[in-house]
Amino acid sequence: MQSPPTLPKLSEFGLIEQFFAQPALSLSAAQGRIKLGIGDDCALISPRAGYELAVSTDMLIEGRHFLPGVDAALLGHKALAVNLSDLAACGAEPVAFTLSMALPAANADWLAAFSQGLFALADAYEICLIGGDTTKSVQPDGKQAGPICLSITVMGELPQGTALLRSGAQVGDDIYVSGTLGDARLALGHFFKEWALSDASFASTRLRMEQPEPRVTLGVALRGIASSAVDVSDGFLGDLQHILSRSHVGAQVMADALPKSAALQSEPLDRQRLCSLSGGDDYELIFTAAPSHASAVEAAARAATTRITRVGRITADKTLQLLDHDKKPLENRYASFDHFI
Amino acid sequence: MQSPPTLPKLSEFGLIEQFFAQPALSLSAAQGRIKLGIGDDCALISPRAGYELAVSTDMLIEGRHFLPGVDAALLGHKALAVNLSDLAACGAEPVAFTLSMALPAANADWLAAFSQGLFALADAYEICLIGGDTTKSVQPDGKQAGPICLSITVMGELPQGTALLRSGAQVGDDIYVSGTLGDARLALGHFFKEWALSDASFASTRLRMEQPEPRVTLGVALRGIASSAVDVSDGFLGDLQHILSRSHVGAQVMADALPKSAALQSEPLDRQRLCSLSGGDDYELIFTAAPSHASAVEAAARAATTRITRVGRITADKTLQLLDHDKKPLENRYASFDHFI
Repeated sequence: MQSPPTLPKLSEFGLIEQFFAQPALSLSAAQGRIKLGIGDDCALISPRAGYELAVSTDMLIEGRHFLPGVDAALLGHKALAVNLSDLAACGAEPVAFTLSMALPAANADWLAAFSQGLFALADAYEICLIGGDTTKSVQPDGKQAGPICLSITVMGELPQGTALLRSGAQVGDDIYVSGTLGDARLALGHFFKEWALSDASFASTRLRMEQPEPRVTLGVALRGIASSAVDVSDGFLGDLQHILSRSHVGAQVMADALPKSAALQSEPLDRQRLCSLSGGDDYELIFTAAPSHASAVEAAARAATTRITRVGRITADKTLQLLDHDKKPLENRYASFDHFI
Repeated sequence: MQSPPTLPKLSEFGLIEQFFAQPALSLSAAQGRIKLGIGDDCALISPRAGYELAVSTDMLIEGRHFLPGVDAALLGHKALAVNLSDLAACGAEPVAFTLSMALPAANADWLAAFSQGLFALADAYEICLIGGDTTKSVQPDGKQAGPICLSITVMGELPQGTALLRSGAQVGDDIYVSGTLGDARLALGHFFKEWALSDASFASTRLRMEQPEPRVTLGVALRGIASSAVDVSDGFLGDLQHILSRSHVGAQVMADALPKSAALQSEPLDRQRLCSLSGGDDYELIFTAAPSHASAVEAAARAATTRITRVGRITADKTLQLLDHDKKPLENRYASFDHFI
C-alpha cells in the first residue's frame, strides 16, 4: 500500500545494508552450509550429509513480550536468544536465521544498538543472518505508528534421528532443569509493583529477564543421552506438561527442589514457588533421562559448564503431581503463561 | 509480560490446534522431506540427497500491506502467495513454511476463513505448515489492540547449484516477464480515489491485488534455462534493477511492450506506464535468458501454462533505459515502491 513519505529517506534496502550486514567474525562453521546469504529472493542452505535441519520461529511484540523503551541492544540479544533456545531444546547446532521487523520509525541509533546486540549473540553461536524484511509499523488505520514487531526463524542442524523431542520421556526417567528458574518473573513482578525487590535483586533478576542465555551447548551435549527436552518459555509447569502430553506419561516434581537464584531464595516461599513453577521467560531446558544415564548427564552438563538439577521423576500415572519438602502433595495453583489468554 | 485475561479463553495452543492443523490433502510430496511437523520446539526437515534448501521470509502488516477489514480468506492466500513468489523466483519447489501471527483478538470466524485461504494455496503447492507462533497484538502502551501482523518463512528445495539468481544476467540476454503487470496498482488507485474504474475493471484488477498467483511452476520449469530471475513485488523497474545491480549490467526495456490486462490497456497511456512499470504487488517473474535459449524458454512457459512476454535486452551499459513505441528514450519518472519510505 503506498503512502506519502513520512520518514527521512532511509530506504528498506539502505536499512538492511547499513545495519544488517553481519560482521563475518567467527562464522566459518555455519558458512560451509550457507551457499547463498542475504540479498537474493531466497538464501540457499545445504545441511551436511547425514544431517537434518531443525526449524523454529518466534515473534516478539512491543508491549507484550518487551516493554516500550527497552534497551535496543538487549532486545536484539533477546529476540535471537528465545529462538536459539528452541534449537537448544532439540539439541541442534545453530546455522542460520531470518529476521523480519516492523518498526514505527527508522532510527539509526536504535538500529545500530539492536543489530549490535543481535550480532554479538549470533557470532557467539556462529549463526548467520540469511534474509529478512523491514516494514514500517503502523496502527490499523495506517496513519499512526504501531508497535515494534520482531519475527525470527532459526535453522540449526543435527545428525539425522538425534533430535531431542518432547515425545521421548519414559516412565522412571529422571527430570532435570538447567540453570535457575523464576528470576525473569521476579523482576517482572517488581516492575509491575506486585512486590518490591532490593536494588541488587532487581538488577540481577532483570538481567535474566532482558538477556537470557540460550542453553545451546547443553542441548547439543545431551544428544543421545536425554530422552526428551523442552525449553522453559511459558513457565516450568506448562512446558513440562508439553513433555508429559507428547510422551503420554505423568510426573512427580519436588516443587521446592527447583533451582533458584540467591535473589529468589531470599523471597517468601509462596513467591519462590510462583516464580519458579510458572514464571516463564526463563529459557532454561527441562529434560529427562534414564537413571542409568545419570553419570552421562552429569558429564554433559560439566562439558557445557551448565548447572543442572534433578527435580523429579516421570511416572506412569498421567498427572503432574507437585510435592513439598515433606514429599506431601502440593496443590497446583500455578498456571502457566499463555500469550493469548 | 503477563496481563489480565481480556479475551474468551481460546488459548494459544487451542488456536493452533483448532485452525492450523493442516488437512493432509495432497502433501505426500513434501512430507517425505519433513521428518517432524508442528508441535515440538523445532520441526525437522531433510532435503533430498543432492538438493539444497531455499529460504525466504516476508512480513505483512495491516494498514501497510493490506487494508483493515480485508477478506480473511484472501489474506490467508496472499500472505503465503507473496512468500511462494520468492521461491518461484529461485526455481525452488515449496516444501515447508512457518507462520507467526499477532492478532488483536482471537476471532474464530476470522481464523477459520484465514486458515482456509492459507491451506487452499498450501495444498495446491504441496507445502506443509511446520511451526508457528500466535500472539495478541497490542499497541505500544500494551492496552489497546494493535495491527494484524503476519510473518511467514518459506522453505523450498532444488538440485544443488540450479537456483535462479539475480546475479546471472549476461549482456545480450533477453528480458522476459510472466503474466501481466500493473493490475494491483490500478485497483489500489481506484481504492484510494486517484482514479475511477468501471465496476468490471475494479473487480478483475482487485482480484489480482488480493489473490496473486505465485509463478512456482514457471520458476521450476526455468531452471537450467533462465540466467537470472526476480519476482515483481515492489514494481517492475525496481525489481529489474536488482538483477542489473547484482549482475553488473544494464538494460533496454520497451516500456509499452510490458504485458497488461485488458482492464489496464483501456486506461490512458501514462496510467498504463505508471501501473506496469512501478506498480508493485504483481508477483510475476522477471527473468533473463540467452537468445539461444528462446525456444527452451517458450517450451518452459507452455509447460507451465503461463504467458510470457519478451520486454527488452540486457546491455553492457550499466543503466536502465526505457524506450517508447518508436524506440525513443522515455524519461524514467516511475519510482519503485519502498516499504520504508
